[in-house]
Amino acid sequence: PVNADRIAEDIDALAKITEPDHPWTRRAFSPLFLDGRAYIEARMKAAGLETRIDAAGNLIGRRVGTKPGLGTIMVGSHSDTVPDGGRFDGIAGVISALEVARALNDRGIVLEHDLEVVDFLAEEVSIFGVSCVGSRGMTGQLPEAWLSRTSGDRDLAEGIAQVGGRPSVLLQQNRPDIAGFLELHIEQGPVLEDEKKDVGIVTAIAGITRIEITVEGRADHAGTTPMDGRADALVAASRLVLDIRNAAGERAKTPGHFAATVGEFRIEPNAANVVPSKVVLLIDGRAEIRSDMEAFCEWLDAHVVKLAITHGVTIEPPKRVSDNHPTPADASLLQTLERACNAVGAKHRRMASGAGHDTAWIAKVAPAAMIFVPCKEGRSHSADEWAENDDIALGAAVLFEAVREMDKA
Amino acid sequence: PVNADRIAEDIDALAKITEPDHPWTRRAFSPLFLDGRAYIEARMKAAGLETRIDAAGNLIGRRVGTKPGLGTIMVGSHSDTVPDGGRFDGIAGVISALEVARALNDRGIVLEHDLEVVDFLAEEVSIFGVSCVGSRGMTGQLPEAWLSRTSGDRDLAEGIAQVGGRPSVLLQQNRPDIAGFLELHIEQGPVLEDEKKDVGIVTAIAGITRIEITVEGRADHAGTTPMDGRADALVAASRLVLDIRNAAGERAKTPGHFAATVGEFRIEPNAANVVPSKVVLLIDGRAEIRSDMEAFCEWLDAHVVKLAITHGVTIEPPKRVSDNHPTPADASLLQTLERACNAVGAKHRRMASGAGHDTAWIAKVAPAAMIFVPCKEGRSHSADEWAENDDIALGAAVLFEAVREMDKA
Ligand SMILES: NC(=O)NCCC(=O)O
Ligand SMILES: NC(=O)NCCC(=O)O
Repeated sequence: PVNADRIAEDIDALAKITEPDHPWTRRAFSPLFLDGRAYIEARMKAAGLETRIDAAGNLIGRRVGTKPGLGTIMVGSHSDTVPDGGRFDGIAGVISALEVARALNDRGIVLEHDLEVVDFLAEEVSIFGVSCVGSRGMTGQLPEAWLSRTSGDRDLAEGIAQVGGRPSVLLQQNRPDIAGFLELHIEQGPVLEDEKKDVGIVTAIAGITRIEITVEGRADHAGTTPMDGRADALVAASRLVLDIRNAAGERAKTPGHFAATVGEFRIEPNAANVVPSKVVLLIDGRAEIRSDMEAFCEWLDAHVVKLAITHGVTIEPPKRVSDNHPTPADASLLQTLERACNAVGAKHRRMASGAGHDTAWIAKVAPAAMIFVPCKEGRSHSADEWAENDDIALGAAVLFEAVREMDKA
Repeated sequence: PVNADRIAEDIDALAKITEPDHPWTRRAFSPLFLDGRAYIEARMKAAGLETRIDAAGNLIGRRVGTKPGLGTIMVGSHSDTVPDGGRFDGIAGVISALEVARALNDRGIVLEHDLEVVDFLAEEVSIFGVSCVGSRGMTGQLPEAWLSRTSGDRDLAEGIAQVGGRPSVLLQQNRPDIAGFLELHIEQGPVLEDEKKDVGIVTAIAGITRIEITVEGRADHAGTTPMDGRADALVAASRLVLDIRNAAGERAKTPGHFAATVGEFRIEPNAANVVPSKVVLLIDGRAEIRSDMEAFCEWLDAHVVKLAITHGVTIEPPKRVSDNHPTPADASLLQTLERACNAVGAKHRRMASGAGHDTAWIAKVAPAAMIFVPCKEGRSHSADEWAENDDIALGAAVLFEAVREMDKA
């Protein structure tokens, strides 16, 4: 039902709006980001959508239905990128949503519900250090304190105002009119490609828990201090990295997506001839099932106590710097998506999302669900990110069928 | 034979010449360093020494002997410090050497040999990234390429010229006149304190081998990539850190000082939600016995090959970025030092130096040896560095006795 060429044309056009030396970079709040949005808005208008920027700085294209009282069916994703990545991450979902509207136009279909195509503001961790600004903001879930987080000489409130939002009224926002929300996104993992599936129907978006651990040893002269008289923070932290890897690996073998990764790791003083005195590391934990994360944190709290004793170092209790619970998708929308896959002949499977998405925030206030399309070797947040246009188009067709069913419900 | 108060007075005076917010910092080539040298030179002159700066920028105070043809007995250390450390590291040896000359004056002793008290330039790793500038330079062992290493807008040649050296004639330097060299230094390790010894007689200065290893994995999304589908460079590097620690620990149990430390460790991209793609680490290896280091390097070369396979990462062959052999002390000077210890009642033991010292460079061209005095808890290169003045004075007395014996030999 959808036009694959039109999708390719738009995604390619957006890919050209990038920092030339850093494909594919279109950071939220940058001039390039606004250039990208100008393109998207023009294409929304060309598709007959009424465009606006909401209080949270989201770009929305509205297609009015015949029975506005029924509420709004919303479809979309985000057009911002991480540094050096994002040819498809987000934008595939924005353009697929737009294509749903165009495909409805092509067939002269008028929905009963209003349909909104949305480009959420700043889904990726932005220059202000926070993510999902638009989806949280639209639904009154943006913490007030975040508005005063700064980057250079502006704060997030000014950033939102500069893209056309109204930060002063942001905390009162909500969207009780949303009858259902759908997002298409690239998987950002290897499962669909490995299993030769066309579509992943996302049952839940994993909770994200970030845990900081500081290991304090003692700086000593690396030349003179006997090997067995040291309190080497790097040695203790290395043991911890391996133990975390193993604990997460075991938990990942049980039902429900689970992952834990040490992604940030800094040593002090980081000098060739000094025994490391301190390591600060950050664990990124993901769990589809909340009790998995609770159990992991319990294990970790107990484990670092033992590790500190064995290695003669000090480890403060692990600090949960952020902690979001898993978000299940709407059960009835999952069935709608399954029927839509079957209608267009898409081979599909249910799976959890290990990555965070705008859908998780919308799901807190309205029925929401999302689908994944395959991406090459699971690569994402990288200049190598790639998705086949036919796969995206098939996913857009699933959205189209699902939106039609949602309209009839 | 020596005057402990005079030693304390000078060391305390030098301690006041420090960056006020960073005790005890007197970095080579800085204005503070020149202030420190002005003090030392004034004290040399007050002791009747003829002072000069040699081509390599060393400050030398000369006490002429009755038979100059016999050559020069040289005693000294360095007055520069690392950042945030060095209340005794180096300066204890310079002041002890000066005290030997004063003690000779007190007793009206004129030696047959010339006696030189030396403050070597830039023993610590300097702003130009190199160490032992003065002791290498005095003996024609400063690599020519180092002269053009820069820091800010000057190069090492300019740095040497600014302290009064003559970089243009540096490569031709040698000191065939040195009949013997002695250095006193704080141990920078815990052995003497633990064993309640007054003096360590240094049998050899360990070779220092620096080995760089790069572990290349693959950056993946930390949320979505299954635990068993990763090439996590941090996990592989953590295993390597533990294996290095264990291998070095085993080798340290065999005769001869051995240590290996991972002191520098950087991960990329160092982002919370990205599986680490790369770790670059630097091993600092020390060996009193060269074959120990060769064996360690052989083990390491073979081990990283296995590790790379087990962890699905790439590890290039370890790169020896620098490699100095151990330097034995002069056997006859060791006996002289032992007799000197016995003469002043200093409890002593033979031991290797795990740290590098100027003595290692002088030892390449002349009979050389050094002694250690205890320092508190082995702390060094730290603001906590401490040595008891009585311990330093006892060490200075050992130098005094040894110099007298060397003069008679
Ligand atoms: N989809 C996505 O990459 N979100 C960024 C937040 C995260 O999951 O790490
Ligand atoms: N003595 C001393 O600390 N030298 C610095 C070079 C080293 O041994 O790391």
